Amino acid sequence: QNNNAPSTYDPHEIAITGYLQTQFQKAQSAGITSFSGGDFSTNSDNRFIIRRGRLKIDRVDKYTSIVFQLDATQNGLQLMDAFIQLREPKLKEFSFTAGLFNRPFGYSIVYSSGYRDFPERPRVFQLLMPRERDIGALIGYRPHTILKFLTLEFAVVNGSGLTARDYDSKKDMIGNIAFKFDSLAGKKFHIGFGGSIYRGYVRSGTKTYYNSTIGGFNANTSDDFVGKYLDRNYYGANTQLQYDNTFGKTAIKAEYIAGKQPGVASSADLKGPYASQSFAIQPATNLYARNFSGYYFWLTQQIGKTKLAAIVGYDVYDPNTDVKGMEIGKPNTFTTSGDVKYNTLGYGLTYQLSNRLKFTVYNEHVTNESTSLIDVPNDIRDDVFTTRLQYRW
Amino acid sequence: QNNNAPSTYDPHEIAITGYLQTQFQKAQSAGITSFSGGDFSTNSDNRFIIRRGRLKIDRVDKYTSIVFQLDATQNGLQLMDAFIQLREPKLKEFSFTAGLFNRPFGYSIVYSSGYRDFPERPRVFQLLMPRERDIGALIGYRPHTILKFLTLEFAVVNGSGLTARDYDSKKDMIGNIAFKFDSLAGKKFHIGFGGSIYRGYVRSGTKTYYNSTIGGFNANTSDDFVGKYLDRNYYGANTQLQYDNTFGKTAIKAEYIAGKQPGVASSADLKGPYASQSFAIQPATNLYARNFSGYYFWLTQQIGKTKLAAIVGYDVYDPNTDVKGMEIGKPNTFTTSGDVKYNTLGYGLTYQLSNRLKFTVYNEHVTNESTSLIDVPNDIRDDVFTTRLQYRW
Amino acid sequence: QNNNAPSTYDPHEIAITGYLQTQFQKAQSAGITSFSGGDFSTNSDNRFIIRRGRLKIDRVDKYTSIVFQLDATQNGLQLMDAFIQLREPKLKEFSFTAGLFNRPFGYSIVYSSGYRDFPERPRVFQLLMPRERDIGALIGYRPHTILKFLTLEFAVVNGSGLTARDYDSKKDMIGNIAFKFDSLAGKKFHIGFGGSIYRGYVRSGTKTYYNSTIGGFNANTSDDFVGKYLDRNYYGANTQLQYDNTFGKTAIKAEYIAGKQPGVASSADLKGPYASQSFAIQPATNLYARNFSGYYFWLTQQIGKTKLAAIVGYDVYDPNTDVKGMEIGKPNTFTTSGDVKYNTLGYGLTYQLSNRLKFTVYNEHVTNESTSLIDVPNDIRDDVFTTRLQYRW
Repeated sequence: QNNNAPSTYDPHEIAITGYLQTQFQKAQSAGITSFSGGDFSTNSDNRFIIRRGRLKIDRVDKYTSIVFQLDATQNGLQLMDAFIQLREPKLKEFSFTAGLFNRPFGYSIVYSSGYRDFPERPRVFQLLMPRERDIGALIGYRPHTILKFLTLEFAVVNGSGLTARDYDSKKDMIGNIAFKFDSLAGKKFHIGFGGSIYRGYVRSGTKTYYNSTIGGFNANTSDDFVGKYLDRNYYGANTQLQYDNTFGKTAIKAEYIAGKQPGVASSADLKGPYASQSFAIQPATNLYARNFSGYYFWLTQQIGKTKLAAIVGYDVYDPNTDVKGMEIGKPNTFTTSGDVKYNTLGYGLTYQLSNRLKFTVYNEHVTNESTSLIDVPNDIRDDVFTTRLQYRW
Repeated sequence: QNNNAPSTYDPHEIAITGYLQTQFQKAQSAGITSFSGGDFSTNSDNRFIIRRGRLKIDRVDKYTSIVFQLDATQNGLQLMDAFIQLREPKLKEFSFTAGLFNRPFGYSIVYSSGYRDFPERPRVFQLLMPRERDIGALIGYRPHTILKFLTLEFAVVNGSGLTARDYDSKKDMIGNIAFKFDSLAGKKFHIGFGGSIYRGYVRSGTKTYYNSTIGGFNANTSDDFVGKYLDRNYYGANTQLQYDNTFGKTAIKAEYIAGKQPGVASSADLKGPYASQSFAIQPATNLYARNFSGYYFWLTQQIGKTKLAAIVGYDVYDPNTDVKGMEIGKPNTFTTSGDVKYNTLGYGLTYQLSNRLKFTVYNEHVTNESTSLIDVPNDIRDDVFTTRLQYRW
Repeated sequence: QNNNAPSTYDPHEIAITGYLQTQFQKAQSAGITSFSGGDFSTNSDNRFIIRRGRLKIDRVDKYTSIVFQLDATQNGLQLMDAFIQLREPKLKEFSFTAGLFNRPFGYSIVYSSGYRDFPERPRVFQLLMPRERDIGALIGYRPHTILKFLTLEFAVVNGSGLTARDYDSKKDMIGNIAFKFDSLAGKKFHIGFGGSIYRGYVRSGTKTYYNSTIGGFNANTSDDFVGKYLDRNYYGANTQLQYDNTFGKTAIKAEYIAGKQPGVASSADLKGPYASQSFAIQPATNLYARNFSGYYFWLTQQIGKTKLAAIVGYDVYDPNTDVKGMEIGKPNTFTTSGDVKYNTLGYGLTYQLSNRLKFTVYNEHVTNESTSLIDVPNDIRDDVFTTRLQYRW
């Protein structure tokens, strides 16, 4: 389930695995911005898509392994994972990973989409760490003895994602700590929790950047600001609980993330929700340093001892915690549709037809805060219903 | 030979198959529009190309299967097939296919290019169903008992092809019926025939569309026509005959298709033959609703009991059956080079060196009707000679 | 080690091999043009990249074989090799290769990057034969008897590389002869040498081309020059020596190439070093017919009997041997930064951790000749330090 690993660590020659997700989706209105598989086309409110088509090739030796994964959909082909792993021969407590891998931040980023109960990662993670991956190096530590429930990870990455050779000269750093206690209380209770830090930078390509204050942004202009690095710092905490009760397994997962994200203003070329995303190339317009926060709750309830499960998720992303509601869009605040908060309530069912085949229906109700902006309705009609068939091979 | 199937339905773990077609081609003149592997570059009348480079990965369980196929050539990589299949456990009469698959229309669309005697599908099918595939869901029915020569198929697809997430909100429907009688008359005679219906729509992005009448188009303009859906309806019939005679196998295949195809006018940016193609994105210019027809005859004659076969093909595509010859290009008819009829006569030889290796030489003589258009010569010098080597693995 | 071959010629079903190279690089200044893995982004002087991610699929019969190789990196996916090989059944002295393969010119072009001691091919080969491959057909001859140390190759190719369907109507020809004597002098000495000819053309798309004379270019203008073909002729010689001495293996490799290369002038859109490259599409600007020369020396010294080796390389590319130093950039010479000579001195270490895993550190000191050009500093600060981890699978 961890993406930063081969299909199995048991030594093997080339193994080919993967998964395919094909789905039909219906949106509340045509052309909406969506984090449920990407934006809908301007005049389309429903669609068939190949959401993910993964082909993973890996090989494992006693001390080394390699993972090579492609994603192929109607949007094209992309390299998703390409990393070499070395494990310290004796205890294998230390590992070194180099290449293109999932950022080791928190829980949902590194958890495979082929195993996740919910169709998509929350909006906040899709925007802060688009497509999860980055290129760099990662050191991991998992004690074998007394602290065997502990995982420590430290990574250095470009910060510009899986399609870039990096556009600036500063690298970003990620630290992660995770605890996992399986099979407590008569093997019925499983618990995990952890925390993460991301410390990076975004380079300003212009003479002006905006810093956030309560109620709006302040402009800062100087010739020296071309090439200035603004902080991109995230802090995260997460927990996972599972209880194998008589009615069926119950799992609750939650994750919180907050920090500073340098983005841009929304514009005719860039819709509001994408103004606070992490960019793969040097942003051409002025930077806006925002304080953000986001979180999600995920509940999975197995229905009796069946292969059916009910899933309910709620996630929030507030790209700018310094301005709220009607303040957004007021004159001289420099706020735009890039500062609007979104909540998503999702609910649905998954049916695991076999260990390979899963059927999911899921409805998402997306709401945004009311603002003074004229281009953002009080509630954008952007709900999405998804029915998905997945095969894991 | 059916593209909507794994390499074999015998249960197996990951199987890797594919085929490679590499060819040298000589055109009658440089820069021609061609349906024999795509247009020639402006100043080029001959070329080496990788025509198809297919890598197919599939897996079959008792009741389920998955197919994942890539195409890699000098033009780039593309996902060609990605579908999950479920078969009804008991009789396997019913099957359900979801994902990216070949449109179940007629005979030549779903027949694999790795097995076809002729280098390419006819022009009419290349234009109406570019690259054969679409994304959606398909229900199939093959009785096991009394009607075992019958296949029924019904599909719902985006209508916008293999590279799109759909650009409009209406889905297209396809129905197909096929009969196949093998080994008649002392196992010497094989016959197949069938019919198909395609019922879809093309969205108008402008205030004006043109409907076809005898002798030209009529313009229709209204603010309401932005977003209007024009009918895209096809009807097809096909037959295949094979006779295993003492001289060698003789096979005749023919297919006819007609209906309504909303296209556009040809322009400086869009050559005539592409004006009546099916588009993957919203056409930006005015729609032209044309009545079209097309057909092909294919004859394959094995030479004695050798691995050599002679092939002769003839295909016709008339994008607009309401205007003919010199009427095209007359003032006030709104006709363009997008309304010109093309015939292709092809003849050649195939030599099956082994069950994996096939060598083909094929010459195509392409003729177009004479029109009043000044930009369309009476006979465009667009013949193409192809010599191809294919390896199937 | 020869790229124009399957993983092994022993008959086998589908075999999957490949290699992954991931590296960190530090440049002397941001945004430099570089032949050590490609140019750095404008504001970046260091980066993590996936340099090569190869997935090779091949299959070998007694008389035939197929190779299909993809390259996947952060830059996208590309078809790298796709060729069918036939071997003459009896002696297998003659072979025929058709498809996309490495140009059979000299030594370093066809030698696999997964086995090469040095991180990259020399600048001169990267420019003259970008990405090494082309599409066409190749006949090879390797006698089995008395002349078994000999290889002869003759190829016809598009001349426009691995991503093009050819942009002109003339094909290019390549001839290659190679001698290899293994295990001489008590099996301690290995020697190889050879020579190559490339005879091709570049089409002029404009009315003016420039021919090179001592001290500058002469302009030639005529309406007839649109469509004129300028000669693209290369001559090469190469040698490889290896001595298995008591201190460790010593290997010296050298290659020289010279000839005529029609390029263009540098411009705001095209940096100087790329002005003399081979183009995949019709050059839109005036051609400049240059006489060029280039060479490299590679020394690999195993350190004792360890897995460690020291590597030193020196390569030179002079795109225009008719003008030198301060003459470049003088008025009326029509010279540009496309005529500047570059030398690269590289040195580093490789450590072969296992037969699959290799670690390389390598520093390259790049110098350019001093010219009268104001846009080319006397020594561009374009050194590059590379640390690479490679896994071959």
